[in-house]
Parts: sequence; structure tokens; C-alpha cells
Amino acid sequence: MSSKIRLGILGGGGDSLIGVLHRVASAMYDQYQIVGGVFNPNWEENIGFVEKIGLPTNRVYKDFDTLVKEELKLPETERMQVVSILTPNFLHFPMANKLLENGFNVICEKPMTTSYEEAKILETTCEKSGAIFAVTYTYTGYPMIRQMREMIANGEIGKVQKIDAQYYQGWINPVIHDKEKRANTWRLDPEKGGISCCIGDIGTHAFDMIEYVTQLKVSKVLADLNYVYEDNQMDVDGTVLLRCSNNVKGVIRTSQIATGEENSFTVQIYGEKAGLKWEQENPNYLYLLEDGQPLRVLKPGHAYNSELSLDGTKMPPGHPEGIFDSMGNIYKGVAKAIKKEPYDEGEFPTMIDGVRGMSFIERVVESHKNGNVWIDIED
Amino acid sequence: MSSKIRLGILGGGGDSLIGVLHRVASAMYDQYQIVGGVFNPNWEENIGFVEKIGLPTNRVYKDFDTLVKEELKLPETERMQVVSILTPNFLHFPMANKLLENGFNVICEKPMTTSYEEAKILETTCEKSGAIFAVTYTYTGYPMIRQMREMIANGEIGKVQKIDAQYYQGWINPVIHDKEKRANTWRLDPEKGGISCCIGDIGTHAFDMIEYVTQLKVSKVLADLNYVYEDNQMDVDGTVLLRCSNNVKGVIRTSQIATGEENSFTVQIYGEKAGLKWEQENPNYLYLLEDGQPLRVLKPGHAYNSELSLDGTKMPPGHPEGIFDSMGNIYKGVAKAIKKEPYDEGEFPTMIDGVRGMSFIERVVESHKNGNVWIDIED
Amino acid sequence: MSSKIRLGILGGGGDSLIGVLHRVASAMYDQYQIVGGVFNPNWEENIGFVEKIGLPTNRVYKDFDTLVKEELKLPETERMQVVSILTPNFLHFPMANKLLENGFNVICEKPMTTSYEEAKILETTCEKSGAIFAVTYTYTGYPMIRQMREMIANGEIGKVQKIDAQYYQGWINPVIHDKEKRANTWRLDPEKGGISCCIGDIGTHAFDMIEYVTQLKVSKVLADLNYVYEDNQMDVDGTVLLRCSNNVKGVIRTSQIATGEENSFTVQIYGEKAGLKWEQENPNYLYLLEDGQPLRVLKPGHAYNSELSLDGTKMPPGHPEGIFDSMGNIYKGVAKAIKKEPYDEGEFPTMIDGVRGMSFIERVVESHKNGNVWIDIED
Amino acid sequence: MSSKIRLGILGGGGDSLIGVLHRVASAMYDQYQIVGGVFNPNWEENIGFVEKIGLPTNRVYKDFDTLVKEELKLPETERMQVVSILTPNFLHFPMANKLLENGFNVICEKPMTTSYEEAKILETTCEKSGAIFAVTYTYTGYPMIRQMREMIANGEIGKVQKIDAQYYQGWINPVIHDKEKRANTWRLDPEKGGISCCIGDIGTHAFDMIEYVTQLKVSKVLADLNYVYEDNQMDVDGTVLLRCSNNVKGVIRTSQIATGEENSFTVQIYGEKAGLKWEQENPNYLYLLEDGQPLRVLKPGHAYNSELSLDGTKMPPGHPEGIFDSMGNIYKGVAKAIKKEPYDEGEFPTMIDGVRGMSFIERVVESHKNGNVWIDIED
Repeated sequence: MSSKIRLGILGGGGDSLIGVLHRVASAMYDQYQIVGGVFNPNWEENIGFVEKIGLPTNRVYKDFDTLVKEELKLPETERMQVVSILTPNFLHFPMANKLLENGFNVICEKPMTTSYEEAKILETTCEKSGAIFAVTYTYTGYPMIRQMREMIANGEIGKVQKIDAQYYQGWINPVIHDKEKRANTWRLDPEKGGISCCIGDIGTHAFDMIEYVTQLKVSKVLADLNYVYEDNQMDVDGTVLLRCSNNVKGVIRTSQIATGEENSFTVQIYGEKAGLKWEQENPNYLYLLEDGQPLRVLKPGHAYNSELSLDGTKMPPGHPEGIFDSMGNIYKGVAKAIKKEPYDEGEFPTMIDGVRGMSFIERVVESHKNGNVWIDIED
Repeated sequence: MSSKIRLGILGGGGDSLIGVLHRVASAMYDQYQIVGGVFNPNWEENIGFVEKIGLPTNRVYKDFDTLVKEELKLPETERMQVVSILTPNFLHFPMANKLLENGFNVICEKPMTTSYEEAKILETTCEKSGAIFAVTYTYTGYPMIRQMREMIANGEIGKVQKIDAQYYQGWINPVIHDKEKRANTWRLDPEKGGISCCIGDIGTHAFDMIEYVTQLKVSKVLADLNYVYEDNQMDVDGTVLLRCSNNVKGVIRTSQIATGEENSFTVQIYGEKAGLKWEQENPNYLYLLEDGQPLRVLKPGHAYNSELSLDGTKMPPGHPEGIFDSMGNIYKGVAKAIKKEPYDEGEFPTMIDGVRGMSFIERVVESHKNGNVWIDIED
Repeated sequence: MSSKIRLGILGGGGDSLIGVLHRVASAMYDQYQIVGGVFNPNWEENIGFVEKIGLPTNRVYKDFDTLVKEELKLPETERMQVVSILTPNFLHFPMANKLLENGFNVICEKPMTTSYEEAKILETTCEKSGAIFAVTYTYTGYPMIRQMREMIANGEIGKVQKIDAQYYQGWINPVIHDKEKRANTWRLDPEKGGISCCIGDIGTHAFDMIEYVTQLKVSKVLADLNYVYEDNQMDVDGTVLLRCSNNVKGVIRTSQIATGEENSFTVQIYGEKAGLKWEQENPNYLYLLEDGQPLRVLKPGHAYNSELSLDGTKMPPGHPEGIFDSMGNIYKGVAKAIKKEPYDEGEFPTMIDGVRGMSFIERVVESHKNGNVWIDIED
Repeated sequence: MSSKIRLGILGGGGDSLIGVLHRVASAMYDQYQIVGGVFNPNWEENIGFVEKIGLPTNRVYKDFDTLVKEELKLPETERMQVVSILTPNFLHFPMANKLLENGFNVICEKPMTTSYEEAKILETTCEKSGAIFAVTYTYTGYPMIRQMREMIANGEIGKVQKIDAQYYQGWINPVIHDKEKRANTWRLDPEKGGISCCIGDIGTHAFDMIEYVTQLKVSKVLADLNYVYEDNQMDVDGTVLLRCSNNVKGVIRTSQIATGEENSFTVQIYGEKAGLKWEQENPNYLYLLEDGQPLRVLKPGHAYNSELSLDGTKMPPGHPEGIFDSMGNIYKGVAKAIKKEPYDEGEFPTMIDGVRGMSFIERVVESHKNGNVWIDIED
């Protein structure tokens, strides 16, 4: 019997990317075991998905209410300890609220709710329940963001005096300029997407990040949003002037019409003593700028890193976290081979590669020992 | 009952980093379930580790021979389907050989064996067994390396005419210049490390990578190694001239005395039509150089990517693979909270963050609608 | 007798950097000859400087009015054809105005005047005179900025839909936080610096650049400036929301308290079809972003460059413009040697270097021809 | 009468790029005045070129021998003090030799001669003459290369233990694969180009650079060159293993078939304490790598720079040397306007730009003072 934390999942089935992200993340520190959930509102797709990802099917439920009801019947030692909510936005609030009311811990995708009003209700429920509640502003988990937070907290850049965050994407570009498409995209439909597209989806990341790394509070905003077309009801771009605690000024710039940008989320924080910069697309680098000093580039996994940063780093310096992915791809290829599925010979290195490698080592040493001469590699 | 592939692990216990890498990698595509293994030669550490990572203890064995014996008693539908070997190098060969002889599929860390002779024996065993065997030259799993391979195979750079790989680290520097340390490091002891340190450990990665991306074979080598001190018996640096099939020339440069380098593994392949460059420390970028054309920077997850590359990419463009790590860190923080372990408030975003985010969205839209004026954010 | 354009200089003596910049710039295309000027208000420093830079002294004048008077006495074929104004800001207007009234062409440092009112007067004078007048917004001269302008004009990024410029410096940081220093810096004194420090000095560059590359006009501004301390009368940081022609929105961000930033001037222009980015600190790179396409990095000197860009490029691809500087430093070292001034042996390569180079070439070829063997280099 | 050093030029006429480089470089520090020379063997082209670049024609000579004869007739106070040789390679030796014999100082393009034998003769002549002789290995003049040299000399990276230089270009690619072209290119003709193409042209730069920055001497070489085709007599690619003084090992990699590379010249020097890296295409950055420390990026113009580096830097931090070029382009545009030649309105900022800039400053301050509201910009 595994002693891992029992995790349930709501949503994330089919080819959901957010589902992949939560499943992999939950496996990263040997802490969680997925015991069940509702991955899809359609029962056949739900159970089909569970079979595809090789989970036991006994605690896959037909819908959310059934999940709550059935799990509550289980003894506490077997019951799901935490449930991750990956469903469409409008379901976050009712699901989270009911889970908290019934004593479940919750991990909830962002945006947490569809309105501030719902958010305040949820906050009250959460306080009453005493449960753990996390909302996944994912980017704050990066080691170098944690490093940034702790360096600022330790006064390494002095009093913060200037804040600038950019979150630029270009994905809505092919939609927004097409009258029909923009009328029919759920992201641009206030019924489905709430009152904001760009600010709601990515502006909130920038806002949360600023408060996370500086531990200042944003106290006022002045915004200039862009809807581009008169018949479009949702912002797709916006600049927000900020007034923060300690009277610090800042700016958040967000866009979904920054053509060609993928996910260009950057944070620049300047203090009286130094500045710090970070870019999400190269998350392993933190730039420290000091007046009259060489630019310093901090990376994860070093003795100079902060405690929280090191707590979130698994590999030694020079190994980008993508290395999990690289090794994961090799495991995936082997899985195909074991299951006798077709696979490309480029998917994993085989015995042949191992043999050639050993030949290479021995012939190289031989070449050197013989006075730097040419030696053949055996086949 | 899970339908995942049943995976056993040899080694990788304690605070082994390679153990983390294989466990996370095996979880990435919902394909494997770790069912047991021998994580440590010491029984108490072995079982203690298994409890720490929350695995069932019923198939944790006291040693490798017992594992083989006991697993063979299980029906095939329950038996381990594949075993990963993460033990010290000298154990790779006997373990892999016995596993293959008994019909287990094997995933083996590199170097596959300690000599070419052993490698050839293993090759024969493998052929007889018909089992799947993978040696983890991890870096070939990167999406952009796969992209590189397929672009070269498709003739996108023309006939290859120049090959250059660099693998520079600086980690041995504090050891090599200290007479006592260099005498007592296992990596520099031929009894434990085989006949080569630098070429064996990292030169082989460069060699395998070149053959992987170009699909050419290295046919001859001329090497100049550096032992730095006369009393040192193992190379810590070396340059290897290469002659490959089609008479292509190349060079591999490796070093463990490249002070300050972390894991600087780069590959440059030039063909008659174009060149391709890649750096392991920024693995999401592949540079395409063409005469008289703007430099092009290819990234993963795009429609322009090759099939094999896309098969190894999980996230959309702009999301570096480190994002799994970021989300994983949030899950880790939540796990601490659920287990009532101490945790830093910077470990995961809570209800407060969720509430503030909703306030931000609503106040931003209000500011804009009221004519770009200042609006307070509620606490 | 040289047929170059006869250039006079006002200011730029002593150790003025702007003086160096204009002198070198005027020499770059073999077009100008400096014939005289007033380099310093103090006569001894004026004449001393002219001697130091090796110019003839016959047309060095004691003050501006004398220059105008005396030059007008010369026949037109000898008279200065153009005068560069590099004096403190408050002198720009009276000098430029008088020069234009007297028919001289003018190159004037920015800011052109100290007020909009003066600027309008100068405009009228200029129109009446028919003279050539240039204000040196230097950065618009970069080849890749010209490339950007022409690509936008040619519709290569489609209709512009998003504008973002950043100009961040950190130089005022050590001044602004010191009560005494900030009270005594001319840049922060409205009597000397006009009504704005940060916007006046660098914000105008961003403004001009946006209008230059897009050929749109900024029609409205909404600004949030930062004076940091109540006793400080001049802005040292500011964010300006922009409304441009065609209803395009944009933002200019400027700061002199972005600690550790040197001269971080960046421009990002997004159109319906593509985006373009440029950074002043790496001025040879222009980034072209297109949805679903690899990032492209354009550089100067290629056949794919625009006409105006090529007109401003002197070296072939791969030779950054700093190469003039590199060669200039060698010439400087030789000058010291010729003048029998002390110099470091690192200042220019000598005969010894030439001889060794020839030995290197011959021994390398010999090594190869003899079958890749070691050959000694002669001393 | 100018007190500058009197410089003569041999070659560099027509549209020679090397001519531009030497003319601009000689103007950079107000040290030289070009008084004459032989710019072209054809008299009409020679005199036409001199008129085009606006030099006096009285000391333009019909050929090299005439130049020497006529200059020697002039009193020493008027005679050329130094002559720059920019002619085809085979003329370097006879010209330099005769100039030195006649007491002229010489600046000579590389390669200095066409053989080691000539080089040794020249060395003897130079010693006898007591004249100043510089060979223009241009890249050693970069400020950050000087910084590198002095940091190594000062022991900042400890004893050098690993040397690696790369000089990759791709320009010969379109030539080498075309049988006719490769037979008819002077660079590949031993009669005209000497015994080596790639090593002679760019390998020597790498060789000189290594000796310059480390102040070590290369004592032995082992080379593997690539001629690609059997009918080709000149190397177009080569790897050279190096043995240097202090028994330091190194490698030079050069190529002209590195397709798509422009001028990728990089230097990596690793010492016992730290490593240093530099790239010619981004010459303002010097990377300092130390074990367990953040990467540091050094730039020119700072107080932390070495004396020699600062002596070769004219602009403050953050202003890449390309800024001379940018300002030079503005001056060029103004020259066209003054000469009533056609010009693009993008060539220099005019009065209009100046006026708009002043409006921008005043309206921005007004917007801020009025409470962050929209204000119109006047036309």
C-alpha cells in the first residue's frame, strides 16, 4: 500500500495540456498518487482516458457530485486528501466551494473564480474549513523566481523603486482580425470568459508575480485596454499603471496581439542598490544588475542560491530542467517498444550505441598513448 | 489494477540525482508504474528510502539476485517488464547481462559497461534474448535534437561537411590541482573508473550525439588527452579529431578543467546548404544558419517541427520544459502543508492570491471603462 | 585643397564625449573636414584643445558671435558650410537661430531647444532660411533601425497594432537618494535643465524612434512620472501611455533609476502580420517574429537588407561596427610609438607577431602533409 | 597647418572595404591626417578616387616607387611619417621592405608576407631601420580583448590550463562545390594565395589572438586540414592541436565551409581559478566564469576595466561602438543634403523631429501634473 498523498483530479482528460502538467508535476517529488477523479463529463471518454493513462478505474466517478458523495463514504485513511480542479473556469467556484465545505484540500487552476464576489465567498468557506487551498499561478514555482523573492526580502537590491512586468503573446492575432472568428471564440465571449480576456488570463499572472517577488501590495491601478474592434467586447491587450505599497510605481504590460510572441513573460525589479530581471522563456537565468559592476547571471542549484530556490531544484548546475523531458522521451520510446507499438529508431539509444561508445573510449585512449595517431573505430 | 508498464529500479536510492531523474522521467507520459527494486545495498536504507518515496514495500528486495529469483516466480502478467540499472558503473554489465538472460527488458545508465569487451558480450546476450535494451544517452531525447536529426535526414542542410562538438565542464578543477584529492577520487582511479575519466564520462555523449544527429559513423579517431599532472592516471581533458563516413571531418572537444563551465555541451553540424547549432544549457533553441539568410531560431511545439520532435514535446510554444518543475514545486509545497510539515509561505499561492487576482481583473476593467483613471485595489 | 564639406564645431572640447562622437562620425564617409569653431568658452582651453587634436588654429574663434562675423567675411567657397552645435542645452536655440538667419546649415544636438515655444520660433527661422537643419537623434542612424523603418513601410509586418519602447538607465541612482547631491545636480535643476529630466533626456529618444520606425504620429499622451522625493523637482522615471494615428496604442517606459541598467533602449513594434524587436546595446540584431514561424534574426550588410540600411553599412556581415574601434585602437598605439610617447606592448601587433604568423601557416600545412604529426613552431 | 601625423596609403581605393576601415580608424583619435598615397595602380582610378573622398591631389603618386622617391625629396617635417599598406598580399613584402629601408614607419595589413622566409628578411630590415612596424591583426584592438589580456596577466584566472579558439566562416561554400569556380578563385590558387587559404587567412588571427591574450607561446602544432575535393589545392577548413609554453594544451578550429557562419571568431581561455570567453560578433561582452559563482559579464568603459581597455574605449557604458556608425550615418545624410544630392527623408532627423520632441516633453509633464490625464500632442 503506497503511503503517498491520495490525489483526485477534476478535468484534464482527453488531450488536455493542463492535465499533463498537473500529472507530471504531482509525480515530481514522489509525494502524490492519483487515485481517481472525473476526467471528462462524458462517461465513455472519462473511463477511456483513465484506461489510456493506465490508472485503476475503481475510483473514477461519473460526475463531480458523485465523487464527493462516494469519497465521503470512504474512511479518512483511504479518502482523497486533495483534489485538483482543472475544469473550465466557471466550474472552479462551485467545485472548490463544495470540496472545501466537505473538508477536502484543493489545488485550483487559475482564474480561481469568475468574479471577485465569488472569490470572497470562497475565501470565507476556506477559512471556515481550515483546509489547504492552492491556486496554481504556476510561474511562481520556478527556482529562480524563488531566488528573486528571497534576494529582495533579504535586502540584496535595497528598497524597491521601480517595477515592470511584461506578458506578451501573439496567439489571438489570427482570431481578432477575422470578424466571424472573433464573434465565436469563447475567450472573447463575456458569457463564457468573464469580464476580461487578456487581463484575466495573463495580466493576473503578472500581477501575482509582482506581489510574489517584491512582497509589496498593489494598491491602485490605472488601465488602458485595447479591444481593437468596436464589436469586440473583451480586451486583448492592455497597459496598467500601478501604485504599490511604499508608494512604489510600476507598470504591467500585457498583450495577446503581440504578433509572433509565444509566452514572453518578463519581470524587472529595480531597487536602490541593484536590479533583477527574469524571463519565463529562459527560466533558469536570473540577471543581477549593479551600478558599475559586471552583470551577474545566477542559475539554479548552486551554493549561492537561496534555501527556497534550492528546495525547488532537483538537478545539478548546467542541467536545465528540460532534462527530465529528455529522459522522459527516452522512457516513452522504450514503452512503445515494450508494448510492441511502432517507434522510430531515433527514440532511444540501443545496445549498438552502447557498444560503439565503449569502442570510442578505448580507441581514443589508444590514439593518445600511441602518440596522437589515427586509430580505427570498430563497427 | 493499473495497466501501466511494471518497472523495477536498481540503485538510485538515498539522495541520488540519477534516481530522481529516472523516476520523474518514467512518470512523464503515464506509461510506467514503479513496482519495486533494490534501491540501496543496505537493507535498512533500501526499505527506508522506499517508505520515504511512498512506494509499496512488498517488492523491494534485499539484493539483485533475489530480485531476479523472486520476480521470475511471479506470473508474467505481474512480473517486472523492464528494469532500470542506476548502480555504479562496474555493476552495469553483470546486472544487465543476467537480466537479459532472464528475459527482462533493460534501461541501463551509461557507460553501458567498463570495457569494449564486456560490451560485445552484452550485445550477444541481448541479441539472443530478443529483449528491449536502452542505454540512457539522455541528451538525444531533447525535442530539438530530434528535430536536428530529422532535418539532417531530410536533407535540409545538404550533405554534412563539418562536425564540431564541445563538452566542457569545470568540476574537476578543485580536485585535480590538489595532490591528495586527485589521488583519492574514484573518478581518477583506473580500478574504479575504467581507462578514462573525461572521454568515458562526457566524450561518449558527444560521440553518441554526433552519430545520432548526423546518422554518420565515426570511422577513425586521433586524440590528444590531458592528464595535467604526471601522477594522475586518468584524462581530464581531450581533443579528438574525427574521420567519419563519407570522409567527413570533425572534432570533439571535452574538458573537465574548463573552469567555471557547468555542462556546456554544444553541437554544430554544417552541411553544403546550411548549418545547425544547439546548446544543452538552452535546449529549446535550435539555430539554423543559411548563407545570406537571417539566422533562424527554431523552438519546440510548432507546426514546423518534425514528427519525432513533436512526439517528445508536451507543452505549447513558449513554455520551456522547466514549467513542469515549476508546477512540481507548487505541488511539493502543498504536500508539505497537507502533511503538516513546515513550509515557507512562498511555496504555493493561496486563497489570498486568488482573491487579489480577481480584484485586479475587475478594477483594471473599471479603470479603463471610467476613462483611464486610478482605482483602488481592495485588500 | 580638399573638396570636403567645410564643418565648424561649437563646443565639444576638453574631454567631451559628444565631441569625440561628432568628430569621428564626421570622418566616417570621407565627406567632412573640420575647419574651425569654438570648442571652449575659455580661450586658452579652446586653443589648447585645437592643438591637442591637431587642427589648424587659424579659424578657431574666441566666441560664437565672432565666428559668425568672421566666417561671413570669407567668400562662400571657403566659408563653413555647416556648423555642429554641441554646447549646453540653453545655447542651442540662440546659436541655431542666428546660424540659420545667416544662411549656415546646422547640425544640432538634442534637445533642440529648452521649450516648445523656442522650437516653433526656430522652425520658422529654418523655413525662411532654406538651410539644412538636422537634430541628432543619433539612434535613428543605426542600419537595423533603418531596416526596421523600411520593412514597416513596405508592409512586412502588416498594419501596426502595438507599440512599446523602453529606455532604462540607472545612472541617477547614486544622486537621487542623497539629499545634498540631488539639490545640486544641474540635471535636476529646472533653471538649467528645463522642465523635465528623464523625459527630456531619454524619453524624447523613444518618442522620436517610435515615429521614425512606424511613420505614425503620436497624437495623445497620458503620463505617470516619478520624482521619488518631494523636494525633487524633476522627473527621473516615467511611463507614458500613447495614442497614435490610426488609433494604435502604445507605451513608452523611461527611467534613470533602473539601477544597474546602462543604456537599455529597446523598441518593439507588432503588426497584424509580424513583430519586430531591437535593442540599442546590441544594435546589429533585428528580431522578426511571425506567428508559427522560427524567430528570424536579421543583421546588417546582407543582400536581404533594405537600401537605406545598406547605405549606412560599411563592413561585410559578421563584422560589428565596433571593428572600426578595434582598428582605431591599433592606429592609436602606432601614433604613440611614432610620437615617442610611452605605450603598452599590447597596443599594436608588431613584426614579431607577423613573423610568428607566417611560421604558424607553414608549420600547420607541413603537419597536415606529413600525416597529422607534431611540428615545432620556430621562435 | 595641422600637427597631425602625416599618413600615406597604398591601396584601398575603389570600393575597397579595407580602405574604409583604415581611413575611419586613422581618424578615430584625432591623430592622423592622410596626406597622399597610391590608391590604385591605374592613374585615372587613383586620382578619381582621391577626388571622390575629397583629399588634396598634390601628393597622390602614380606608383609606389614614385611615392618613395618624391616623399624622400620632401623635408622631414613634411614627409609622410607612416605608410599603410593595403595592397594585395604579394606586394606587402617588397613595399614594406623598401619603406623600412628608407626610414618610413609602416602599418601593414595581414598576412604580413607570403612566406616565413620573406617574414624573416623583413624582420631584419625592420631591426636595422629602427622604424615602427605594425601588422594589423585588427581584433586585438577590441577593448574587451585588451581587458582579457590584462586580467590573465594579473593572474585573475590563475595559471592557464586550456585554450580553445574558433574561427568559422561559411563564405567559400558557394565556391568550393562548383568545379569551375574553385578552379578560378584566387584564394584557392597557390600562385596567388600562398600555401594556405583558411589557415593563412583566418587561422593566423586565432593564433595571434591566443598568443596575445595569454602571452604564452605556441610551441608545436598538429594539424588536420580539409581540402574537400581532390582537385583543390588549398585548405578551406582545419583543426590544429596546440602545445604551448608551460605545457598548456589547446586547439584552433577554423573553417570557411561552416555554412551560414559570418565571422564567428571566439576565444575561450580557462585557468586554474576561472575562465574567460569572448565572441567577435558581440565584441563588447567578456564572460568571466568561476566555479560556483554567478557568470559575470564584463563590458567596456567601467571603472572595473583595465587601463589598456579604457585607453581603447571612447564612449560610456551601454553605448556600443556602433554608435559612431549611427552618428556617422546621420552626418552622411546631411552631407547629401548639403551637396544637393538626393536623399531619403529617413536619413537624418530634421527640425520637425526637434519640434515634436519639445512638444512631447511639455505635454507629458502637463499630463502628469494634471493627474495622469490624456493631453494632445500638437502637430
